[in-house]
Amino acid sequence: MATAPSANLKDELDIVIPTIRNLDFLEMWRPFFEQYHLIIVQDGDPSKKIRVPDGFDYQLYNRNDVNRILGPKASCISFKDSACRCFGYLVSKKKYIFTIDDDCFVAKDPSGKEINALEQHIKNLLTPSTTHFFNTLYDPYREGADFVRGYPFSLREGAPTAVSHGLWLNIPDYDAPTQLVKPLERNTRYVDAVMTVPKGTLFPMCGMNLAFDRELIGPAMYFGLMGDGQPIGRYDDMWAGWCMKVICDHLGLGVKTGLPYIWHSKASNPFVNLKKEYKGIFWQEKAIPFFQSVSLPKECSSVEKCYLALAGEVKSKLGEVDPYFIKLADAMVTWIEAWNMVNSSGEKPAMTSLPNATSKK
Amino acid sequence: MATAPSANLKDELDIVIPTIRNLDFLEMWRPFFEQYHLIIVQDGDPSKKIRVPDGFDYQLYNRNDVNRILGPKASCISFKDSACRCFGYLVSKKKYIFTIDDDCFVAKDPSGKEINALEQHIKNLLTPSTTHFFNTLYDPYREGADFVRGYPFSLREGAPTAVSHGLWLNIPDYDAPTQLVKPLERNTRYVDAVMTVPKGTLFPMCGMNLAFDRELIGPAMYFGLMGDGQPIGRYDDMWAGWCMKVICDHLGLGVKTGLPYIWHSKASNPFVNLKKEYKGIFWQEKAIPFFQSVSLPKECSSVEKCYLALAGEVKSKLGEVDPYFIKLADAMVTWIEAWNMVNSSGEKPAMTSLPNATSKK
Repeated sequence: MATAPSANLKDELDIVIPTIRNLDFLEMWRPFFEQYHLIIVQDGDPSKKIRVPDGFDYQLYNRNDVNRILGPKASCISFKDSACRCFGYLVSKKKYIFTIDDDCFVAKDPSGKEINALEQHIKNLLTPSTTHFFNTLYDPYREGADFVRGYPFSLREGAPTAVSHGLWLNIPDYDAPTQLVKPLERNTRYVDAVMTVPKGTLFPMCGMNLAFDRELIGPAMYFGLMGDGQPIGRYDDMWAGWCMKVICDHLGLGVKTGLPYIWHSKASNPFVNLKKEYKGIFWQEKAIPFFQSVSLPKECSSVEKCYLALAGEVKSKLGEVDPYFIKLADAMVTWIEAWNMVNSSGEKPAMTSLPNATSKK
Repeated sequence: MATAPSANLKDELDIVIPTIRNLDFLEMWRPFFEQYHLIIVQDGDPSKKIRVPDGFDYQLYNRNDVNRILGPKASCISFKDSACRCFGYLVSKKKYIFTIDDDCFVAKDPSGKEINALEQHIKNLLTPSTTHFFNTLYDPYREGADFVRGYPFSLREGAPTAVSHGLWLNIPDYDAPTQLVKPLERNTRYVDAVMTVPKGTLFPMCGMNLAFDRELIGPAMYFGLMGDGQPIGRYDDMWAGWCMKVICDHLGLGVKTGLPYIWHSKASNPFVNLKKEYKGIFWQEKAIPFFQSVSLPKECSSVEKCYLALAGEVKSKLGEVDPYFIKLADAMVTWIEAWNMVNSSGEKPAMTSLPNATSKK
C-alpha cells in the first residue's frame, strides 16, 4: 500500500478535476484523495448531474456557477472543454493545486507498488529546482543523489519549485498525427527520475497529471480559450505551459518534470483530436519561436504583471498570425482581472460568495 | 550476454584510455572492446611499462611519443594527469571516440544483463538530439517513444548528435567536499533514459564514460592544462564540457546524457582531490557565468574557428580571474595548431609519423 503524504499539506492542497465521467476514477484514487478537498469543474451541459461517491469532500462548479461568480469576466473560461479546469485554480484558496484527468488511474512502479502520485508531486514542489545548471544525476535533492563534480556551489541552493509535471504510463500523450500513425504504441518505460526543465527551455506541459504552487505561479496557469465557439482545442495546457515557463524563467522559479507516473487508461479519438488540433499544428510553429524569444520587462516583479505584459506581447506579435490570438490576449487580461477579483478579498469564495455551487463536506 | 554493436562501426571508432593501472579492466571489457582499436595515453613516467593483455589491437603513447609527435606544441598536453587523454583524440583518425577510465567496469541493468556501454553510446550518437525543445518522454528516437503532443513538427528532425555522456553506477562522480561529507553514498538508481542537454544549458561533463563524434566536435574536446606544474586538477573534463557545449550550441549540434551506465569501482582519495580541486571550486564560480554569457561571432562556422574565438574570450575575460587562464587560453590555441598539424595530412599518424609508439595488431 502507498504511504500517505505529509499530513500538514492536507489543508494546503486542492485537487482540481475538469469533469468526472466515470465513478471508477474516484474509487480508485480514494485512498490517496479522500483526505483532500476536490474542486470539480463541470466542462459541459450544467443540467447533467455528476455523481460523486460518498466520503469525498468536494465542491462542484458548473457553467452557471462560473457565470454567476465571474459575471461578464466568465468569458475567459472555456466551455465544453477541459480547459475550464483553470476556474478551479482561480476559486481555490489553497497554496498547492494538483490537477488530474478522469481517465488517469493509479499506476504501479516496477516493483508492483501503487504510486502515490500526489505524494511525489508534493516532494517535487517542496524541494528546489536546478534551474540554472544541469545536474547529470537528475534531482540532487532526492535521497541517494547529490550534485555532481563541477556543479557550482553557489547554485546548489536551487530555485523555488513552482510546477511539478508528472508523466503517464500506458497511453502516451501524443498529438493526433502521431496517434494515427502509431495507434498501438504504449508507454511501458518507467524512468525513475525527476528533472528540472532548464531556464530558457520550453517544454510541452500536459494538464493530465500536474501540480503547482498556486501562490508562486497561479495567475499564469490560465488554460486559454478552447472548445465551444473557439477554432482550436487540446492546446489549453500547452498554452499555459509556454506562458508559465517564460514567467518562471523571468522570476527565477523552477519547473520539474518526470515522476510521478499515472496510468492513462484511454486514448482519445484521433480523428476528433485532429479536428481540434488542426490549426494549433500550424500556429505552434509561430507561437514557440515567439515564446522562445519574448522577454519581459525588468519591472515585472509579480506573476500578474508578467502575465499582463505577456498578453500585450501576444496581441502585438501573435495577433498577426491569426485574429484568434487577439481574442486570446484579451481573455488573458480578463483572466487576471477575474483572478484579482476573486482573490483580493482573502476570503474563501466557497461558502460565502458561491452559495449555489454544489458542495459536500 | 550483450549484443555486439553494428559491425560497420568497427572501423570508425577508437577507444581512448588515459592509462591502465590494472589488467582486470581490459579483461572485463574484452567481449566489448576486442574488436576495436585502443589508443592508450600513458599519463605519467614513460619508463613504466603498461601491460596490455593479448588479443587487443592497441597503440600506446607515452610522454616521449607526445613530445616527439607534437614537438614544441606538446606543451598543450597535460602530464601526470588523465587530461593527457585528449592527445588520443588528436592522433585518432576515426569518426567516433569512446573514452573510459580504467576504474570503470561493466555495469548490469536492473534485469541483471551486462550493459554494452559502447553500443548505447553509438545509438546515442547515430540518432539526433532534441536540442531546441524539450521532450517530456525523453529520447523520442528510442523504440517505444516519440515526440509528445505540443512538440513542434518543424523541430522533429532534431540536431546531429556530437556528444554522448554516459553515467555511473556505484561510486558517483562527486567533488571532494561532497566525497568528504558523504563517503558512503553509492549510486544505485538506474534511470532508463537518454536526455538531450538543451541549447543554452551547461552541464558538468565527466570524462569517465564519454563518446563523441570526432568529425563534428573533435577540436573542442581539449582537456586543458592539469596535473604536473599546473595549479589545478580534476577540471579537465569540465573545461572541455563547457567549451564543447558553447560551440555545439553555436553550431546547432546536440549533446546527450544518461544511458549507458558503467560500474565505477573506486572512489579516488577525497583529500588528494580537494587539493587538486581547491582553486577550481572558486574559479568555476566565475567560469560558468562566463560560459553562460559568451557568444561566438556568426563567422565562426567551424569548430576550429569557434575554439580560437573562445580562446580569445577566455584570455580577455577569465584572464582577469587568474593568470592561469591566460596560460590556458594560449594552450587552447596551441592545441588547435597541434590538431591541424596532425590532422591536415589526412594520413594515419600511427605507423608513419609515429614510428616508435608502442603498437600491436
